[in-house]
Amino acid sequence: MAPKLNTFEVLKRSALGRIGRFRTAHGNIETPTILPVINPNLIGEPGNLSPQEIKKEFRADAVITNSYIIWQSDELKEKALSDGVQKLIGFDGAVMTDSGTFQMYMYGDVQVEPLEIVKFQRDIGSDIGTILDLFTKPDEDREKAESDIEGTFERGQGSVGVKGDMALAGTIQGGVYPDLRSLAAKRMSSLDFDVHPIGGVVPIMESYRYKKLTEVILAAKRELNPARPVHLFGAGHPMVIPLAVALGCDLFDSASYAKFAAQGRMMFADSTRFLKDLDDLPCSCPVCSGHTIQELKSLDKATQTKMLARHNLHVTFKALRQARQAIYEGTIWELAERSLHDHPRLNRALESIYTEPELQERREPTAGRRFFYTCPTSMQRPLVRRFKQRFIERYRPRTKYLLIGFMGNLEARKPYGTAFADDIRKLRAVSDADIMFMSYYGPVPLELDEVYPIAQSLVPDVHQLPKDVQEKLKDEFEKFSHDNEYQMAVMYDGDTTILDVENWYDDVPMRTHVFDRVLAVSDFQFGNAATDAMFPKKDDMNWVTNEVKIKTSRKTGKIRNVIVEGEHILSMRAHDGLFTLKQDGAKRILAGTKAPTNRLVVNDDSVPFNKEGKSVFAPFVISADPDLRPMDECIIVDGNDEFVAVGRMRLAPDEIEFFKTGIAAEVRSGSDDED
Amino acid sequence: MAPKLNTFEVLKRSALGRIGRFRTAHGNIETPTILPVINPNLIGEPGNLSPQEIKKEFRADAVITNSYIIWQSDELKEKALSDGVQKLIGFDGAVMTDSGTFQMYMYGDVQVEPLEIVKFQRDIGSDIGTILDLFTKPDEDREKAESDIEGTFERGQGSVGVKGDMALAGTIQGGVYPDLRSLAAKRMSSLDFDVHPIGGVVPIMESYRYKKLTEVILAAKRELNPARPVHLFGAGHPMVIPLAVALGCDLFDSASYAKFAAQGRMMFADSTRFLKDLDDLPCSCPVCSGHTIQELKSLDKATQTKMLARHNLHVTFKALRQARQAIYEGTIWELAERSLHDHPRLNRALESIYTEPELQERREPTAGRRFFYTCPTSMQRPLVRRFKQRFIERYRPRTKYLLIGFMGNLEARKPYGTAFADDIRKLRAVSDADIMFMSYYGPVPLELDEVYPIAQSLVPDVHQLPKDVQEKLKDEFEKFSHDNEYQMAVMYDGDTTILDVENWYDDVPMRTHVFDRVLAVSDFQFGNAATDAMFPKKDDMNWVTNEVKIKTSRKTGKIRNVIVEGEHILSMRAHDGLFTLKQDGAKRILAGTKAPTNRLVVNDDSVPFNKEGKSVFAPFVISADPDLRPMDECIIVDGNDEFVAVGRMRLAPDEIEFFKTGIAAEVRSGSDDED
Repeated sequence: MAPKLNTFEVLKRSALGRIGRFRTAHGNIETPTILPVINPNLIGEPGNLSPQEIKKEFRADAVITNSYIIWQSDELKEKALSDGVQKLIGFDGAVMTDSGTFQMYMYGDVQVEPLEIVKFQRDIGSDIGTILDLFTKPDEDREKAESDIEGTFERGQGSVGVKGDMALAGTIQGGVYPDLRSLAAKRMSSLDFDVHPIGGVVPIMESYRYKKLTEVILAAKRELNPARPVHLFGAGHPMVIPLAVALGCDLFDSASYAKFAAQGRMMFADSTRFLKDLDDLPCSCPVCSGHTIQELKSLDKATQTKMLARHNLHVTFKALRQARQAIYEGTIWELAERSLHDHPRLNRALESIYTEPELQERREPTAGRRFFYTCPTSMQRPLVRRFKQRFIERYRPRTKYLLIGFMGNLEARKPYGTAFADDIRKLRAVSDADIMFMSYYGPVPLELDEVYPIAQSLVPDVHQLPKDVQEKLKDEFEKFSHDNEYQMAVMYDGDTTILDVENWYDDVPMRTHVFDRVLAVSDFQFGNAATDAMFPKKDDMNWVTNEVKIKTSRKTGKIRNVIVEGEHILSMRAHDGLFTLKQDGAKRILAGTKAPTNRLVVNDDSVPFNKEGKSVFAPFVISADPDLRPMDECIIVDGNDEFVAVGRMRLAPDEIEFFKTGIAAEVRSGSDDED
Repeated sequence: MAPKLNTFEVLKRSALGRIGRFRTAHGNIETPTILPVINPNLIGEPGNLSPQEIKKEFRADAVITNSYIIWQSDELKEKALSDGVQKLIGFDGAVMTDSGTFQMYMYGDVQVEPLEIVKFQRDIGSDIGTILDLFTKPDEDREKAESDIEGTFERGQGSVGVKGDMALAGTIQGGVYPDLRSLAAKRMSSLDFDVHPIGGVVPIMESYRYKKLTEVILAAKRELNPARPVHLFGAGHPMVIPLAVALGCDLFDSASYAKFAAQGRMMFADSTRFLKDLDDLPCSCPVCSGHTIQELKSLDKATQTKMLARHNLHVTFKALRQARQAIYEGTIWELAERSLHDHPRLNRALESIYTEPELQERREPTAGRRFFYTCPTSMQRPLVRRFKQRFIERYRPRTKYLLIGFMGNLEARKPYGTAFADDIRKLRAVSDADIMFMSYYGPVPLELDEVYPIAQSLVPDVHQLPKDVQEKLKDEFEKFSHDNEYQMAVMYDGDTTILDVENWYDDVPMRTHVFDRVLAVSDFQFGNAATDAMFPKKDDMNWVTNEVKIKTSRKTGKIRNVIVEGEHILSMRAHDGLFTLKQDGAKRILAGTKAPTNRLVVNDDSVPFNKEGKSVFAPFVISADPDLRPMDECIIVDGNDEFVAVGRMRLAPDEIEFFKTGIAAEVRSGSDDED
C-alpha cells in the first residue's frame, strides 16, 4: 500500500490545524510549513540566501519559485526545461512554482496564456504547479469578484487536464466576500486539484485586516476538500502563523524574509521593525544571540541583509514549530488566541475566529492535554460548545432533585471548591439528589468532573466571569433544570451553607457512587443507547455488586476497569477520565444498538488487516457514525455490521471520503488479537 | 566627575522599569539583567556551563554565587580569600554573592553568624554581598513576618557597618503582606545599602501566585530608595521577566537554567516543559534551531543537560533584551500585559498590576513612541490616567458651547472618524463651539488630537468597549461638561448628522484655529499659568497676526514654530505633537509665574556647566516642580530663580534626591548657548 504521490495525509490535529504530510517526487512536505520564495534572478547575488543554505540551516522540505520569471528568460527557460526546476535553482527537495498571478496583480497583465504556463510548469518538473488564476483585489466589488471566480474556474477546468504527474494548485479567490470565498472553494474543490491556495490575501494582510482575513479563510475552509492542503498564498509572517494554522492553513510562502531583509527590516512575532530603530534585539535566534545590536548595525550591507534574512526565517520557522507543538498537544486555539493579544489589529480577529462553530466542532478532537483560558473569547472555543452539547443531549437525571453549586475554584483544576466538595461528600451520604457545579462550561455533574476538558482546565471561577456571562450561565441552568423536569432545584452560592443535614458521615468517601460515574461518563462519551446496551437493566438494589464490578486504583481511588457479567467492557484512562472501549464492550454495543451508533464501516479489502490490529485507511471506509469526532472511540465493522475491531477515530466522519491516503482510525485491537 | 563605585544610574525608563547601570570594580552591570547562579561545587562537572562559557555565549555582565557554600569548604574558602571570588569561579566580570539565607529557608538553619558572613563576602572581594536576612515563608502569619522584618533590620544595621568597599544588598522580606513589604522597604531604605533584593518570593512564584507576587513587588517599590537597583531574588524565568521588569525589578538571578536542565526541562516564555514531553521545539535559539527534537532527545545525558542549560539561558536573555527594547520604546506595560495572556495564572496578575496608581503615574514618562491596547486592563495604564488628569486640570473652555462626538476610529489612529472630521471642518467655519471627541481616553478636544499618547494610540473605538465602560465614559463627559459650566452640550453619535449648517465651506482647512491648538497644547503641557505667561493678553481681534506668529509646515500643515512679539518661544515636535520649550519661552514663564512652576533648581556648582549646555546631574539638584514628570520640558534655574538653561527631565522630581549619580535632566540649551 505504498502511498501515491501528490496525496495529503493528516497525522495529528487540533482546531482546524493539522500536522500533515504531502508526498512529492522530491520528498515529503511536512505541514504546517513555509516554502521560502526563491527568486531565480537573485540566486548567487550578494546578500541573498541560496536554496542550499536554506535547506541546510532551516531543514526546509520545499521552496517556491516563480515559473513566469523562468518562462520570461530564454536562458532560465532552456535550463529549466532540460535539467528541471530543482536543478535550475539548486534545491534538493520539493519545488513548488507560482504562475504569474501576482505579477498580474502587480503590473496589470502577463504575457502568457493560462494553459501554456501550466504546461510549462509541468514540463520543467515542478512538484506543485499553480494555475494562472484571476486575482481579486480587496477593493473590488462583488461583480468583479464573481467574474474572477468564474474565470478562474474556467481556467481551472482546462488546467487540470494538462497537469500530467504534477500536483496542481487551484487558487481560491473571492475578494473580501465570505460567501464568494465559499462559492469559489466549492467550485474549485469539484476539480481535480491537489492543493488549494487561498489567494488575494496579501493586500488584506498588508493593511492589517486580520478580522477580514479570518473570515475569508474560514469561509473557504467550510467548502474546501479537506484532503487537500490549504496554502495561504503570500503569507509567512510569524504574526499571522498561529492564527492561520489554527484556521487550517497548512502551507505558507513568503518572499518577505528576503525583501524585508534587503530593506533592513526584521520580522518578529508581533511586528516588523527596522533594525536601525531598535535599541536591543528582542530575539534568541542564532543571529540575534550571536551578535550585539551594535555589531549587527555596523555590518556591511550585503552581510547585514543576509543576517537579517536568516533572522527572518528563524523566527518564521520557530512560529511554525510552535504551532506544530501546539497541534501535537491540542492547544492551537490557545496559542492563536494568545497571539491575537500581540497587536491591537490582530485583536480584532478575536471577533471572528469562532464563526464557523459547526465545522469547528466537527473537526475538534475529543481528547487533549489541557484547556487554558486566555481571555473572554476562549469560552467560544469548540470544546466548550461540544461539552455543553454532549452533556445536554446525553445526560440522564438520576433523581428528581438537583443541587447546583454556583462556585468554582481555579486552583483545584476542578469545577468546584474544596469547601463545597466537603459538603457534597456529606450530602451524598444522606440524601439522594443529582449534584452539579456551575462552571465555565455551564452545569457539570459531579460524575463528569474528571472528564476532558473539565479536569484539564485552567479557567476563571464562575464568579470571576463578567456579570452578563454569569447571568447567561444561570439561564442555562434554569433551562436545563426545567427541561429535565426536576421537582426541586437548589442553588448553592458558596457563601451560605444550605445543607441542613443532621447526621454527617465524615468517613464517607467521595466516590461512593462510583457506578453513577461509570454510567454518566459512558452516557457522555458513547451516548445513551450504547450505555444501555453495555449495562444490564437495573432491576434490584444489588445489581452493581452482582453483575457489575468496578475496579478502582488503590492509590488514587479512581476507576480503572469495568467488568459486566464477567466481561471486561471498559477501562478508564487516568489522564483524561474517558473510557477506552474493550472488545466485549464494543460487541455489547453492536448487539444492543442500531447502526450507525459508534460504528466505522470498512470494506472487505480492509477487514482482514483491521482484524489483525492494523489501522483503518481512509480509502477503505464505507461510512461512519456522523456523531463521531476525531479521537472518539469507535467500533470497526464490516458491511454486515459484524465486529472487526475497536479503535479510535483520527479523521472526522465528514472528511474521510475525501482522503486518498492516511489513517481514518487507529485500531487498538482487532478480533484476531487478544484484547 | 568620575562616577563612584556601587552607584546606580537610570538611563532610560518606561513604567517602573529602567535601563540602568550599576558600577562595580569589575565592570558595569547594565540592567535589567540576570545573574546566572554559579554553584562553586559544580564548576567543571559534566553537563555544567562554566562561568567562562556563560560570559562568552551570553555576554553576561555578572554572575552570582553562594558565599556560604564557599565559607563551608576549607579549600574554597582559602582560595577565595587569597585570590578573590572572581578568580575562584573564573569569571571575568562582576560577582555577586548570596549569604546562606536560602539554605536557611531550605534546611532550617545555617552555621554562620550574620556579621561573619558579610565580612567574609567583603574579604573575598565580592562586588555585591548580601546580608543574612530572615526568610519569611508565604504561609507564615503576620507576627512571624513582622519579627523577621525586625530581625533582618537589626542584622542590616550591623552589616552596613562592616561592608567596606563592597556593595551590600539589603533584602526586603514581609511575606505575603503588602503593608509589611512596604514597612520593610521603608526601614531597609533608611540604611546604607546599595542594592535591595525582594526576598521570599521563590515559593510564591513556584505556586504560580503571580497576582500576589505583583502586590508584593509594588508594595516594596512604593517605599524603596529609587536610586538602588531592585533584585527579585531567585527569579529568572522568562515567564515572569516582562511583568517584573515593568514593576521595576532591575536584577534577576536564577539557578533554574541549570537545575531544570539537569532534570531534562526547558524553559519557555509561557511554561517549563520536559524535553521528553515535546514533539517539536517551539524556540529559535541556537540550540533549538541547530538541532531537530529527535537529535536533542538522543544526546547523552551530560551533553543534553548542557544543551538545555544553554537553551534556558538563551530564552532568559531574550526575555531581558525584549524587556530592554520595550523600555527604550516606552512600551513595557504593553509587553507585560501581553505576557500575562500566556498563562491563566499570569492572567490573574492583571488584577493587581495597576494598584499603585500614584507612584506609577509619577514615574511614567510623558513622551513615548506608541500606546497599543492589549486587553480591557490597558485602560488602567498610567498614561490614560495621566491624560485624563492633566486634561481635566488644565483644559480651559474657549466658548460656552460643547459639541462632543461619541465615536472613534481605530484605523485612523485618531480619536475620531474621518466622516466626523469632515463635519467638524465645516462646523468650525461657521460656528463657535468647543469640539471634543469621546475616546478611549475620555473626552479629547480637537486641539489635542496630535498630542502623545492620543495620536500614537491603537485602541478600540468607544463603541467596541464594554457597555459599562462606555457608560462610565459618558458619565465623565457629563461631569466635565457640568464642571466647566457649558451652557449647551451636544452629543454627536456618529450615525445621525446633527449639524444643521446652511453654508458649508469646503475649502476651510482643518487648522483654521491653529492658535487654539497652540494654546491648548501649551495648557496641557505646561499648565495655565505658564501659558498665560508666554502669550500676551487677548485684547483685540487681530492680536494673533500682530503679536503671535505661527509657522506651519508647508507639506503637512502642522505647527512648527511659535513666535511671540518677535521671540521664538516654542517648537512643536512632529512625532509626538508636544512642544519643545525655547529659551525665550522659558524666560517668559520665569517672568510670569511663581516658583516652582516648571523649574528645576540646581546648585551653584552646577550652574556654569548647565549654562554651557551640559546635563544636570542628580546630586546637584536642589529642588524640582513636583508636577514635572520624566521627559517633561523643564527650566533649569539657580538658587535665585535666574534662568540657566532649558532641558528635559529624565528622573521624576521625587526620586532625584536619592541618586548619587546620573542625569536628572538633559539640557537642550544653556544661557551661554545659541538657542
